[in-house]
Amino acid sequence: MTEHAYYNQAIHGPYETHSIGDHVLEEGGTIRGCTLAYATFGTLNAAKDNAILVPTWYSGTTKIMEQVYIGAGRALDPAKYFIIAINQIGNGLSTSPHNTPFPGGGPNFPRVRIGDDVRAQHKLITEKFGIEKLALVVGGSMGAQQTYEWAVRYPDMVRRAAPIAGTAKNTPHDYLFAETLIEAITSDPAFKGGWYGSPLEVHQGLRRHAKMWAVMGWSTEFFQQDRIKALGFSSVDDFITNFMNGYFGVMEPNDLLCMAWKWQHGDVSRHTGGDLKAALGRIKAKTFVMPISTDMFFPPADCAAEQKLIPNSELRVLNTIDGHLGLFGTDAGYTEQVDKHLRELLASAA
Amino acid sequence: MTEHAYYNQAIHGPYETHSIGDHVLEEGGTIRGCTLAYATFGTLNAAKDNAILVPTWYSGTTKIMEQVYIGAGRALDPAKYFIIAINQIGNGLSTSPHNTPFPGGGPNFPRVRIGDDVRAQHKLITEKFGIEKLALVVGGSMGAQQTYEWAVRYPDMVRRAAPIAGTAKNTPHDYLFAETLIEAITSDPAFKGGWYGSPLEVHQGLRRHAKMWAVMGWSTEFFQQDRIKALGFSSVDDFITNFMNGYFGVMEPNDLLCMAWKWQHGDVSRHTGGDLKAALGRIKAKTFVMPISTDMFFPPADCAAEQKLIPNSELRVLNTIDGHLGLFGTDAGYTEQVDKHLRELLASAA
Repeated sequence: MTEHAYYNQAIHGPYETHSIGDHVLEEGGTIRGCTLAYATFGTLNAAKDNAILVPTWYSGTTKIMEQVYIGAGRALDPAKYFIIAINQIGNGLSTSPHNTPFPGGGPNFPRVRIGDDVRAQHKLITEKFGIEKLALVVGGSMGAQQTYEWAVRYPDMVRRAAPIAGTAKNTPHDYLFAETLIEAITSDPAFKGGWYGSPLEVHQGLRRHAKMWAVMGWSTEFFQQDRIKALGFSSVDDFITNFMNGYFGVMEPNDLLCMAWKWQHGDVSRHTGGDLKAALGRIKAKTFVMPISTDMFFPPADCAAEQKLIPNSELRVLNTIDGHLGLFGTDAGYTEQVDKHLRELLASAA
Repeated sequence: MTEHAYYNQAIHGPYETHSIGDHVLEEGGTIRGCTLAYATFGTLNAAKDNAILVPTWYSGTTKIMEQVYIGAGRALDPAKYFIIAINQIGNGLSTSPHNTPFPGGGPNFPRVRIGDDVRAQHKLITEKFGIEKLALVVGGSMGAQQTYEWAVRYPDMVRRAAPIAGTAKNTPHDYLFAETLIEAITSDPAFKGGWYGSPLEVHQGLRRHAKMWAVMGWSTEFFQQDRIKALGFSSVDDFITNFMNGYFGVMEPNDLLCMAWKWQHGDVSRHTGGDLKAALGRIKAKTFVMPISTDMFFPPADCAAEQKLIPNSELRVLNTIDGHLGLFGTDAGYTEQVDKHLRELLASAA
């Protein structure tokens, strides 16, 4: 296989890979030789009680988690913690539609659920590192979905949880938004039902997808207060072309679609026959629910409603006008708030 | 010309038509024999001081304004007022791309601005009815854009103004949202650059357009609190198919695109060399600025910022979880609030 122009060590590394073998999925499919790409920071102590797990969001890889959330002097400080950032299945680095050969790859890649990711990650950290307790699981957006799944599925293993800008059960509105993103891509005739040659052939669909992210991803205030210029872009067009398309336009459509379906169907209440209260009631982790104040599709109200169902939890709203994509760390005030809350959470008995 | 399956008297009537002759547009084009479709309710009194003008929103016609906002016992009561509801250019009833013959129609229809509508409406009400003062101009969304344009362009003529869920100067975020709607339609191969045979051929683009309206038009709470079921739909799919597509799916793509461009470029500061404060400072009308609390693309913050620039104005937020499309009158509490504020405005000295 030739190296991919975007999903490679030069851009996203250094990362390691670990095969968990064949992975039978909740929806019935099997990923043959399922491989997780992951990166670690810091050292696992002898007691193996300083491990922090960081999953990834839609389109994101462990690299952006490292750049925005991990580092010396940060709450997630490799000097104190052993931080394991794991790429979700389908994100282009772990096993994904684009790097799975015919016939199981591309549009034939099986349906993957958040629960499949968390079971795979569980295998990795137990088999590879022998970790039995996680000091913290923290992730944003789809990373929050995985965080909730961890806390509900393995309640005795997760001591603290910090779901940022995400929900335990995806909302109907959020489902619809993801649907419009999916259709932006699949409606491009060049998509050819997923049998495109290179992702660049699907550039029209990818560009529509990126523009729709611009509408829902930031906020009205973000544009009104000219945050675009503060971020170094001369106009909305420049921002759409060189930031939004620059980011999304190089990705694999089939990989994005794998993640989008997974995002749409995130729901921890699958563990309890649809009873969300019962599912969230299982959580033993000390949990900080951290929505972003201006998030248009994981709004504070939706997150607060779930937080009320989690026994040992608090709501910690992150204030920024950068909306959901404040996750990217575009607002220094946002990352300061994240660090402040995570420090407090990590210092708390759990 | 055969009667259109949707834009006709049976569905949107009764309405009258009035030709204002050739209409030279701000962008340089000319509409030959520009005709406005309008409906009146009540009687113009001898002093000609009881006239209320009601423009229309994107995709809307005077029929929905009548159904939701006008009636006996309502603030806009035909027993007291002479109410003139006027269809905007491009909405399918007034001169529009689809009802303008080749070569000036279809995708060749010239660019129309909000100011072109307001000048045309001014001709209609002065030439046809001899009205020199309007007791009130009230409209929602693009109707609010026209309301602002009226109050800035003809300050001595507009005694009261009530822009609902709209802005005087369109925001960059709103512009982007409209752009994604436009691209949902134009990206359909069946659109053929606007040279489609019938609108139904563009059903895939129209359906994507309708679904994107579902995401931005309502609110997360609307879906979370199952307003869909309260409105008589069994599921989100049923709602998307039979409400959103039922509404938008029968419309003419070229007409929608004419209105979308106009919406994107709404800006009263064109009168003052780009100085919005100076433009809004011209307004003499007693003005109630009425955003909808959960509006995702004309949010209260944007409307409040403009309200502060209008001399004799007040901010009156309409509280509903139905978002921007609360304009449709889906929430009885919303229409009650509208009536309460409009009654107070109409009773005020101006």
